[in-house]
Amino acid sequence: MDEPTRYAEGMKTRRAVLGEAYVDKASASVSEFNRDWQEFITRTAWNDIWNRPGLERRERSIIVLSIATALGAWGEFRIHVRGALNNGMSRDEIKEVLMQAAIYAGVPAANHAFKEAMSVFAEVDAEG
Amino acid sequence: MDEPTRYAEGMKTRRAVLGEAYVDKASASVSEFNRDWQEFITRTAWNDIWNRPGLERRERSIIVLSIATALGAWGEFRIHVRGALNNGMSRDEIKEVLMQAAIYAGVPAANHAFKEAMSVFAEVDAEG
Amino acid sequence: MDEPTRYAEGMKTRRAVLGEAYVDKASASVSEFNRDWQEFITRTAWNDIWNRPGLERRERSIIVLSIATALGAWGEFRIHVRGALNNGMSRDEIKEVLMQAAIYAGVPAANHAFKEAMSVFAEVDAEG
Amino acid sequence: MDEPTRYAEGMKTRRAVLGEAYVDKASASVSEFNRDWQEFITRTAWNDIWNRPGLERRERSIIVLSIATALGAWGEFRIHVRGALNNGMSRDEIKEVLMQAAIYAGVPAANHAFKEAMSVFAEVDAEG
Amino acid sequence: MDEPTRYAEGMKTRRAVLGEAYVDKASASVSEFNRDWQEFITRTAWNDIWNRPGLERRERSIIVLSIATALGAWGEFRIHVRGALNNGMSRDEIKEVLMQAAIYAGVPAANHAFKEAMSVFAEVDAEG
Amino acid sequence: MDEPTRYAEGMKTRRAVLGEAYVDKASASVSEFNRDWQEFITRTAWNDIWNRPGLERRERSIIVLSIATALGAWGEFRIHVRGALNNGMSRDEIKEVLMQAAIYAGVPAANHAFKEAMSVFAEVDAEG
Repeated sequence: MDEPTRYAEGMKTRRAVLGEAYVDKASASVSEFNRDWQEFITRTAWNDIWNRPGLERRERSIIVLSIATALGAWGEFRIHVRGALNNGMSRDEIKEVLMQAAIYAGVPAANHAFKEAMSVFAEVDAEG
Repeated sequence: MDEPTRYAEGMKTRRAVLGEAYVDKASASVSEFNRDWQEFITRTAWNDIWNRPGLERRERSIIVLSIATALGAWGEFRIHVRGALNNGMSRDEIKEVLMQAAIYAGVPAANHAFKEAMSVFAEVDAEG
Repeated sequence: MDEPTRYAEGMKTRRAVLGEAYVDKASASVSEFNRDWQEFITRTAWNDIWNRPGLERRERSIIVLSIATALGAWGEFRIHVRGALNNGMSRDEIKEVLMQAAIYAGVPAANHAFKEAMSVFAEVDAEG
Repeated sequence: MDEPTRYAEGMKTRRAVLGEAYVDKASASVSEFNRDWQEFITRTAWNDIWNRPGLERRERSIIVLSIATALGAWGEFRIHVRGALNNGMSRDEIKEVLMQAAIYAGVPAANHAFKEAMSVFAEVDAEG
Repeated sequence: MDEPTRYAEGMKTRRAVLGEAYVDKASASVSEFNRDWQEFITRTAWNDIWNRPGLERRERSIIVLSIATALGAWGEFRIHVRGALNNGMSRDEIKEVLMQAAIYAGVPAANHAFKEAMSVFAEVDAEG
Repeated sequence: MDEPTRYAEGMKTRRAVLGEAYVDKASASVSEFNRDWQEFITRTAWNDIWNRPGLERRERSIIVLSIATALGAWGEFRIHVRGALNNGMSRDEIKEVLMQAAIYAGVPAANHAFKEAMSVFAEVDAEG
């Protein structure tokens, strides 16, 4: 697969998972400084990895929420709470991921993740 | 649920996920120093969390493998590669978890996880 | 000990350590999404662990401040700066924890912890 | 070298790397609580380490940006983006550090670092 | 305090905390490559921080065990299990630190810490 | 650039940085389980990132050593100590990276990195 195809296929998945609004905003903020970066992650993360067969998208969301919680990557966590909802996870299932994560990544990580998830849900609800 | 029941129900799940051999070995090494600890994790991790409804065991395995990879908790990772197999994940699905984890936790974490997983698979194969 | 007793005993300790105001606020924000979580940490963290004999509460505060600093869990750190004061640590003793933590967790972690601690002290002073 | 000399030599380097404005602000906020800390890092980080021969200052900036990204120490990261510019790195070179860091520390860390760096550049531009 | 005094005072504390045998071994392995490093940590960690008033040595041991567990720094953890014993902590108190750490740093970190602590105790017992 | 070219160009750089012996050994251990992974990192890490202009290879080595130290990724660290030597860093320069890393990632991380680096140097010396 050549680079333009990887980018186009990655962008489709990125839009399907993260939502049109988020990706439009990210695309609008592309600058000379972060253009290479935005293109790299679209090709590499969103095509080369997310488009692989072998796991369902909702399972990939579970991986990303788990790792973002463990590493305290809260910006990424928020983006992927929306991604998880778009990939078919219920709020209750997200809750279960965080309760399981508490055992393996510690209570402070899970405690903060609960706060962030509730804040994202409130945003989603406000958007109607 | 009282403490003896939590312990008994936790032990059932721990044995189902980690295998009789591993739990027998852990039980045999219980000492005055780690008895409280072994009982605490059996009640808390293995009953209070693993026995919750809401996610399948294989999904809980995905969470644990993801977090153990991200945090470099290689002893825990090895135990839960066996757990993942016991919970119905294929080796190819474990591979996919690690490829996804590479993006979100970095290449060194995933690279080492591949080595550890292959070493566990070799052990499992040798046990016949 | 059954679950209601663990919850009640945990809540007493949680209130004694974190203060009535904080726990009242946390209790008021309980929702369908985080009820299981709030109950789990009250039973598990605040009763099963914090109520164990063997260390004084101020020693448990030292552990929590140290780990929260090392992991960059700043929300948890702020809560437990208040907890440390309630458990009898002086501000100077908290300072010493952070200076010791700088060696073992790095200067950036300690540097940020100093900022957070000073911000909590300012809040406490304003509450008079 | 005695302590006053270490402090004075460290302060020179700290001012050269982080800029007069930042250090003046940090010095103005010194209190009874953080005086020992400010003096310790000036002597130890800024003299004993930063003043060692063997690497150029721009190479030391590369180390600090890499570690701050990997550990999610964003306050430290922001300070040292300015430090890197003062030590002669171009914005494009900072970009390259972050792209390399994405592979070794994961995409979420690098993604957030891009956001922080762009925010610091905007501040610098606004200061004229 | 000048550098030779900081080194001498640091070495006294290092020997008191870590034991003569460990420090003799570390001193014997000093090479051109790590001489600056060994001198730096003796002056900075062992004198400038460990010799500060304000906390007891056993409290400083609690900090170090907590952080080493949270960060998975197992070599450091092992050294400081001996340090904790030398500073007057009982094995039961070390157990309590690890149980508290499980909540705040996660079960895998504490689980591995139990294994390392038991291994150090076995070494100590074998030395008679 | 298409995938076979990315792979071929990545492999050239991987061999130049890590050495023929290491890459031959890694290639010989490719299995059904890790083939996708080995190909992914060769294309993505070794071509898409390492082959970018904008930083010298020795600067990229500084980044990788810094991050591997901060994250405790010791397998990766060892590989990249050899890479750093191949990219023109002296042992003294590697020492300086570790001393700088001690401030920003903590003493335990740097202390272990010194041990690993000395062990790699001994291997290199033994190979003559």
